Amino acid sequence: MKKYNFSPGPAILPQVVFEEASAAVKEFAGTGFSILEISHRSAAFKEIMDEGEALIKEILHLNDDYEVLFLTGGASSQFYMSAMNLLAKDKTAAYLDTGTWSTKAIKEAKLFGNIDVVASSKDSNFNYIPKDYQLQGDTSYLHLTSNNTIFGTQIHSWPDVDVPLVCDMSSDIFSRKLPIEKFGMIYAGAQKNTGPAGVTLVVIRKDMLGKVEREIPTMLDYQTHITKKSAFNTPPVFPIYVSVLNLRWLKAHGGIEEMQKTNERKALRLYDAIDQSAYFIGTAAKEDRSMMNVCFLMNDPSREAEFLAAATEAGCESIKGHRSVGGFRASIYNAMPEEGVETLINVINNFS
Amino acid sequence: MKKYNFSPGPAILPQVVFEEASAAVKEFAGTGFSILEISHRSAAFKEIMDEGEALIKEILHLNDDYEVLFLTGGASSQFYMSAMNLLAKDKTAAYLDTGTWSTKAIKEAKLFGNIDVVASSKDSNFNYIPKDYQLQGDTSYLHLTSNNTIFGTQIHSWPDVDVPLVCDMSSDIFSRKLPIEKFGMIYAGAQKNTGPAGVTLVVIRKDMLGKVEREIPTMLDYQTHITKKSAFNTPPVFPIYVSVLNLRWLKAHGGIEEMQKTNERKALRLYDAIDQSAYFIGTAAKEDRSMMNVCFLMNDPSREAEFLAAATEAGCESIKGHRSVGGFRASIYNAMPEEGVETLINVINNFS
Repeated sequence: MKKYNFSPGPAILPQVVFEEASAAVKEFAGTGFSILEISHRSAAFKEIMDEGEALIKEILHLNDDYEVLFLTGGASSQFYMSAMNLLAKDKTAAYLDTGTWSTKAIKEAKLFGNIDVVASSKDSNFNYIPKDYQLQGDTSYLHLTSNNTIFGTQIHSWPDVDVPLVCDMSSDIFSRKLPIEKFGMIYAGAQKNTGPAGVTLVVIRKDMLGKVEREIPTMLDYQTHITKKSAFNTPPVFPIYVSVLNLRWLKAHGGIEEMQKTNERKALRLYDAIDQSAYFIGTAAKEDRSMMNVCFLMNDPSREAEFLAAATEAGCESIKGHRSVGGFRASIYNAMPEEGVETLINVINNFS
Repeated sequence: MKKYNFSPGPAILPQVVFEEASAAVKEFAGTGFSILEISHRSAAFKEIMDEGEALIKEILHLNDDYEVLFLTGGASSQFYMSAMNLLAKDKTAAYLDTGTWSTKAIKEAKLFGNIDVVASSKDSNFNYIPKDYQLQGDTSYLHLTSNNTIFGTQIHSWPDVDVPLVCDMSSDIFSRKLPIEKFGMIYAGAQKNTGPAGVTLVVIRKDMLGKVEREIPTMLDYQTHITKKSAFNTPPVFPIYVSVLNLRWLKAHGGIEEMQKTNERKALRLYDAIDQSAYFIGTAAKEDRSMMNVCFLMNDPSREAEFLAAATEAGCESIKGHRSVGGFRASIYNAMPEEGVETLINVINNFS
């Protein structure tokens, strides 16, 4: 039986990526060596780094004002690095608090400047995206979490503000078109739509830099990695390689334009099934529902084990909800095939 | 023809590790899923993390005073994290300057406290390990680089000091026995004897912590990763997995005790061939020669291309020396088989 991985991350990637990655672990690009032993300064791997940067620029429609970096440490490291690099001590950064990851980003940023939490949906367990808020006059940037993996909400309407957006897109980058000119910085842990765990993507507009006075350790300074093209020290070779394989797949399948269409079709069909069932209820406000993480509860929580067993029997794995929300969560990233979503929909429709 | 990878890092790993890693990229531990899509919180992967920690404790003979962490960012990140976490602002850390990496470690540590460079071999292009130096009275720890990949030197006699050693062992950890009680902290980028690029090993004795007052971002605080057993955020799943495969191999082959014997045999035979040849000369002081990175020059540098071609023809790859030293460098980590070294020795012996 085919099994489908609905895990929130690390998450499903295309089967062809696994096959190509597996082959490269045996031998990489006709070198006679494994990708795991190849020098990060070899011509063959430099080509991969360059290709990755070019693919990201092409897929996200970035112009030359933007730099693309392959770092490590996850989005959790960008929570402090973004403020450390972008926020002067006497300036303010605005933060929209839409869930666990926003809350963590706010905590870390407070070490570096004034943090203005302009709105929060915490009082309703983060089940919606706040939309009415004002920025203070001295605001340097507005920080957003575009998709809230745990709570199943997503920003569908980008705020109309006159400061750049700094955005944690860990769980929905490469899933949809973006008004890229609004963004001063985008960061993302790879392990959803980008690649496997172990690499962190940072996209930064060059005019965001050079505005802080503080001393920054070399490895934490974005300028270091811009100057050295993400190879100041040994980068995470294999996670970058697999990300490039995945981005090749993404481009070959129509880029973010096609991904968005498929993702919306998958998500809307799944939400429809939930809405039409007498047994389930979606947790997020309808207008803020995530196209990536579909969170739903049972009207009768005592039947959760029964539903989980039925889903597992049908091949739908890792649909248990996060403990902060309970119930179920189906993560349906780019690589989740439509038949995976159909399989889960059938389980929902057949539940009685 | 069999090719041997003499690269300084990322570096050769055992063939069986590549085969097992390749298989796990297709399917991991009978889960039906690739290791690249598996949750870092799954039972199957938690077992790998626990096994990795246990293997490192066993192989390095660590008692329960020590914690083992799997981090990211390379040794380059430990240059500042070690001082940030261990060195109070008004205290002194002593540093032995034995090469490029020591010099970088010194630069980053200066952001956090008083740095006393107790000795340096810079004036002779780092071709030896300084041995006569005194520590100041308020010294918190002595920082060493145990093996200098670029210059081919290695500390063979650990200093007799009354402060803990903090040691960058990126290029010789797991290669030899250690008087572990001398060490307060050991760190190592994985990509030599531990595993592939993308994970950084930190071994820390608990009494080293809790001595600084400064505010530390959550992700940079060793205590975070101790408390969360290296899973505060998503760890680099695959690089950790491959490291565990490699550590299993290492244990099955007799641990560091057997590695040390084989490494010394390999290195001494290679140095002998260099010393006995009329065409080559070792660059490092004899008593400080590295058992991992064998650096040598030609008496007639105009014949370097000729020797490189002969080595390549024999299957010896990546033996070009670092630009700081020139000539040649053969990196012969644990996984370099004796026949690889013999092959290179034959090229040296047959050169005329």
